[in-house]
Amino acid sequence: MRGIYLEQGTVTLRDDLPAGDVCDDEVRIRPTLLGVCGTDLELKAGYYPFTGVLGHEFVGVVEEGPDRWLGKKVVGEINAPCGHCLPCQAGRGHHCPERTVLGIVGRDGCFADSFLLPARNLHEVPDGVPDECSVFTEPLAAAMRIPEQIDLTPAVRCLVVGDGRLGQLVARVLSRHGVSLTVLGRHERKLALLTRLGIETTTDSRAVVGGQYDVAIECSGNSTGFEAARQALRPLGTLVMKSTYAGQLQCDASALVVDEIELVGSRCGPFAPALAALAGGSIDPRDLIDAVYDLGEGPAALSRAAEVGVLKVLMRPS
Amino acid sequence: MRGIYLEQGTVTLRDDLPAGDVCDDEVRIRPTLLGVCGTDLELKAGYYPFTGVLGHEFVGVVEEGPDRWLGKKVVGEINAPCGHCLPCQAGRGHHCPERTVLGIVGRDGCFADSFLLPARNLHEVPDGVPDECSVFTEPLAAAMRIPEQIDLTPAVRCLVVGDGRLGQLVARVLSRHGVSLTVLGRHERKLALLTRLGIETTTDSRAVVGGQYDVAIECSGNSTGFEAARQALRPLGTLVMKSTYAGQLQCDASALVVDEIELVGSRCGPFAPALAALAGGSIDPRDLIDAVYDLGEGPAALSRAAEVGVLKVLMRPS
Repeated sequence: MRGIYLEQGTVTLRDDLPAGDVCDDEVRIRPTLLGVCGTDLELKAGYYPFTGVLGHEFVGVVEEGPDRWLGKKVVGEINAPCGHCLPCQAGRGHHCPERTVLGIVGRDGCFADSFLLPARNLHEVPDGVPDECSVFTEPLAAAMRIPEQIDLTPAVRCLVVGDGRLGQLVARVLSRHGVSLTVLGRHERKLALLTRLGIETTTDSRAVVGGQYDVAIECSGNSTGFEAARQALRPLGTLVMKSTYAGQLQCDASALVVDEIELVGSRCGPFAPALAALAGGSIDPRDLIDAVYDLGEGPAALSRAAEVGVLKVLMRPS
Repeated sequence: MRGIYLEQGTVTLRDDLPAGDVCDDEVRIRPTLLGVCGTDLELKAGYYPFTGVLGHEFVGVVEEGPDRWLGKKVVGEINAPCGHCLPCQAGRGHHCPERTVLGIVGRDGCFADSFLLPARNLHEVPDGVPDECSVFTEPLAAAMRIPEQIDLTPAVRCLVVGDGRLGQLVARVLSRHGVSLTVLGRHERKLALLTRLGIETTTDSRAVVGGQYDVAIECSGNSTGFEAARQALRPLGTLVMKSTYAGQLQCDASALVVDEIELVGSRCGPFAPALAALAGGSIDPRDLIDAVYDLGEGPAALSRAAEVGVLKVLMRPS
């Protein structure tokens, strides 16, 4: 079996990988389209330890498993919790300490001819939804985690910091909530995609300083973006940390205390509303696709995704 | 008039200070007992710019102002908001950008023979409450900010990091809420004060690692304490930042995102319940008093308060 394999910071296309056996509660999925995420690039850069097949964004067809799923087009949640520990029993399976995570923690990922996932992680893709839309379900669900965590009423003034893959999806989700929204970015081309959707954008970080925002969502993944988000917030405002960071973040903690800022870490989100928004067309992410590679060109696809200014890179197993 | 004056990092006792004029909405207060706070020491160390009379913890007698207040024993809130701006109109006067703060921002403090404060900031001290108790109203109110910000039910497992002035008061407040409480500190003498109150304590930071706490309250003011608080939290836990920090805080922001930790900055709190707890005796902070100086020995009192292991230092204007 072919797969994009990460070992000690090196990504290679291997064709000698075992396909593995399907356990009782699992299915085998043959992916039809794959998405490269910033986390894949961070794993490659060694920010987190992982050895194995990369990849956690996919749409595919179930080719082995229970009858109920056989032949179905699916997307799938990436956390596989143990189901028995206290967090699992309390409904916090996403935070199960024993969990595996597809292509991230203790479980081979989807950048392969086939891969395994628990059947309970699956969501069936409605007929007629293009793979180029449904492949965005996982990152769109992550963006939809935000309205689960904080109140977003039309009176809320939101700033999204970052115009990349994550910022684009977050902005589209917030825009649907009718909040007062501005996106701070660095790339005219990327911001233009949002302007076209009627979303206000700016490249001037000085224009957003001064405490006029109730909520700032950090999607840039760097300290400069974090600082811009903080300085944009009013006292008692909320800073949502959506990006992971390479290494240590430096911040002025006293300012957080004096202004009583609330920081909220935000990770994986709900698949059902994300898939519904993609299926219904209320969010169409296809303008974010910058390139589609063959799975056999996986290492090149990852390098392309790491270039400055590149939005979504997809891979097609052919 | 005498006062403990800060200018460019140097604290001096001056006897040439103007007493100032009482404006329409203000009173002049003659303090009877004063408290030294960590913030006074941070101002002296130059972490925030301030020139003028230091001090914001006091109990005293109104000697000039409206009849309603004349001769009354009072404590007072330290923020003097403008009353007109949007945050003030929205009931967030503590965060008024135009506010002055007693002995901290744009307003001479209480370490003097007398000082001025808006009459609306005053709370009358009930008869019979010792000055040695009521002088703790301001820092106790700051500790009582925490239950205003987060839910504290008996099922909540709380860790307080830090056994100093702030940690001591925070622990006593949380203990009253009946939460499951542990205090992590470094000083056996200070922890013994809490043990005597039936509060569980430890000096072993390894004993609190591993995600068994729902809420951790950082009262140590250093990065080591912050890290201990974070590592003690379960995923989706809440880290309350009660201390201000000298300089930049370094933290592993990715861990905050992956574990979806909520960080809450926490500053000034409600005077009324703090004064009520002190007056009713449900919180008696007198065991925290390590020394009482004469106001004329102010610089020595501040040096003493800065020594490792020292809890509360008071000053008496005689």
